[in-house]
Amino acid sequence: MTLHSEIFEQPERLKNLLTAQRKTVAAVAAEIERRRPAYVFLAARGTSDNAGRYANYLWGARNGLPLALATPSLFTFYQSPPRLQGALVVGVSQSGQSPDIVSVLDEGRKQGALTLAITNAPASPLARAADLVLDIQAGEEKAVAATKTYTTELMAIAMLSAALHNDRTAWRELERVPGWVRQVLKHDAPIAQMVERFRYIEQCVVLGRGFNYATAFEWALKLKELTYVVAEPYSSADFQHGPIAMVAGGFPVMAVAPQGRVFESMLGMLQRLRNEHNAELVVISDDRGALSLAQSPISLPAGIPEWLTPIASIVAGQLFAYHLTRAKGYDTEKPRSIGKVTETH
Amino acid sequence: MTLHSEIFEQPERLKNLLTAQRKTVAAVAAEIERRRPAYVFLAARGTSDNAGRYANYLWGARNGLPLALATPSLFTFYQSPPRLQGALVVGVSQSGQSPDIVSVLDEGRKQGALTLAITNAPASPLARAADLVLDIQAGEEKAVAATKTYTTELMAIAMLSAALHNDRTAWRELERVPGWVRQVLKHDAPIAQMVERFRYIEQCVVLGRGFNYATAFEWALKLKELTYVVAEPYSSADFQHGPIAMVAGGFPVMAVAPQGRVFESMLGMLQRLRNEHNAELVVISDDRGALSLAQSPISLPAGIPEWLTPIASIVAGQLFAYHLTRAKGYDTEKPRSIGKVTETH
Repeated sequence: MTLHSEIFEQPERLKNLLTAQRKTVAAVAAEIERRRPAYVFLAARGTSDNAGRYANYLWGARNGLPLALATPSLFTFYQSPPRLQGALVVGVSQSGQSPDIVSVLDEGRKQGALTLAITNAPASPLARAADLVLDIQAGEEKAVAATKTYTTELMAIAMLSAALHNDRTAWRELERVPGWVRQVLKHDAPIAQMVERFRYIEQCVVLGRGFNYATAFEWALKLKELTYVVAEPYSSADFQHGPIAMVAGGFPVMAVAPQGRVFESMLGMLQRLRNEHNAELVVISDDRGALSLAQSPISLPAGIPEWLTPIASIVAGQLFAYHLTRAKGYDTEKPRSIGKVTETH
Repeated sequence: MTLHSEIFEQPERLKNLLTAQRKTVAAVAAEIERRRPAYVFLAARGTSDNAGRYANYLWGARNGLPLALATPSLFTFYQSPPRLQGALVVGVSQSGQSPDIVSVLDEGRKQGALTLAITNAPASPLARAADLVLDIQAGEEKAVAATKTYTTELMAIAMLSAALHNDRTAWRELERVPGWVRQVLKHDAPIAQMVERFRYIEQCVVLGRGFNYATAFEWALKLKELTYVVAEPYSSADFQHGPIAMVAGGFPVMAVAPQGRVFESMLGMLQRLRNEHNAELVVISDDRGALSLAQSPISLPAGIPEWLTPIASIVAGQLFAYHLTRAKGYDTEKPRSIGKVTETH
């Protein structure tokens, strides 16, 4: 299966990206530092928008850069684009073809803002519209559901953070990512077993917080695209203010809860869900306590620094979505209703 | 019922707000113009976060102000707040008590940014932390589910847009809002009938785009809080890239589709949902074509300018959620698991 083999390509692609683009990333970081943008204005759709959610937390927490997620329809429908002077305008797109993302970069450039494309297609319209280009070098993605382009987008975003930070520890940590992803891939067979229990779910929520807010969104998106389950992503903070009311006995909750700053908050939520709401839990974590709360635990390798956990965690989510698609009898290669290029006008 | 009577209070509250706060809004706008912020950094949770989504489109499309929705956990967990120089930092909170929203304003002030609180509690910690305060004057909100504080937050945001624009047409349009809301409230009895059909739904999606992206989120939130239905909000653009795959025959889709710039795009989506996916549609619109696609149409008064449709549309959504709660046999006054003040740490 193409999707399965692309999931398994990830360690190699991440490793190559780290080596091949390191100099380009340093040059991009130098140019950003020279221009000192007040904030980042980032445009993306679908899976790439989830990579933008990671940038939102990562560049905010580690590089002090506030990030506004663009609303592309402001550019395509309302034709009254916001003032972008002083912004770093970033477009993230696997194909580099989405006209609405290209239009955001065009506008940024017209207004004199610095523009950056993060894309798998360095000759695409998006790349041509940008001052700076980061090529995620994922190789052609043939499966309709994006996997390796998501993790390489995260890697490019993480590399840029390390370069802006000029942080040698961060670079050493980045070099360990392909190995951590390889370890997660070892759960392939156990996850194929685990999903049997979920053959008949029709809905679930997916929780994550901080850096893994992005992971919750991306895991939920894979579930929706491939398994047609109504999977709603939440930060645990937003979830407890209202939506938790949906959770009654047996309601399936997927959670991404590795150790780190937001872990205690996630753990409290998981305890509450299990003990008070009788929820059915699938938990991705490197903490025994969190894993022990789950009927279906998926363990992460020990020692991943929190900022890099999203790259390893989502690989478990991808495997879960892939195997659940098969368990439900759907086609992993031809999901209903979606195409590869998001040509929203 | 308190919730029902608070929904019906809205025309009066909106009218009073428009008169009582007009001078304050003008003064706030003058101070913002004097400081010329590069962008807006807005922090909110739950219903107020949906008001922030409205500000995102409105201030972007009509005032050229890019807006970043804050991720409060950057401030509370990672303790490495982004640089906020040059930003207008806005906190939106009914109670003004949420510590994480207050901490964003504190940080903005510490960094020398201009700060604005939009709140129903002008003596609250949030208001005390802000340079500028807009009091939404909704009166005490006793129901757990927020309704009148949402529409008055939208109104305060819309008034500030008109003041920044120095636009007399806009002010005349604002004055008509209470009347439009009153007309929507006339659908109370028909909506009480309409919801019977949905007694047993467990999941749905809610679609909106542009200014009404906020309406989709808020309608979905009311459904989740009150009826425990898994209601997922989407922009129609994001929905067609993947999640539409979930929609099979009879799947309920709620849509907010008034006339305006994004209408053709919403209409195309509704046609596709009805004709290709056999979806079950509830549509709020002022367009006959869009309404005729729906098994359950809810008509808006004619002539509302697009930028103000969210204030009228959500009132229909509130009535729908209220009556569905009763049809499902749940308590509209005591929803499970939520409190009034969102004290996330």
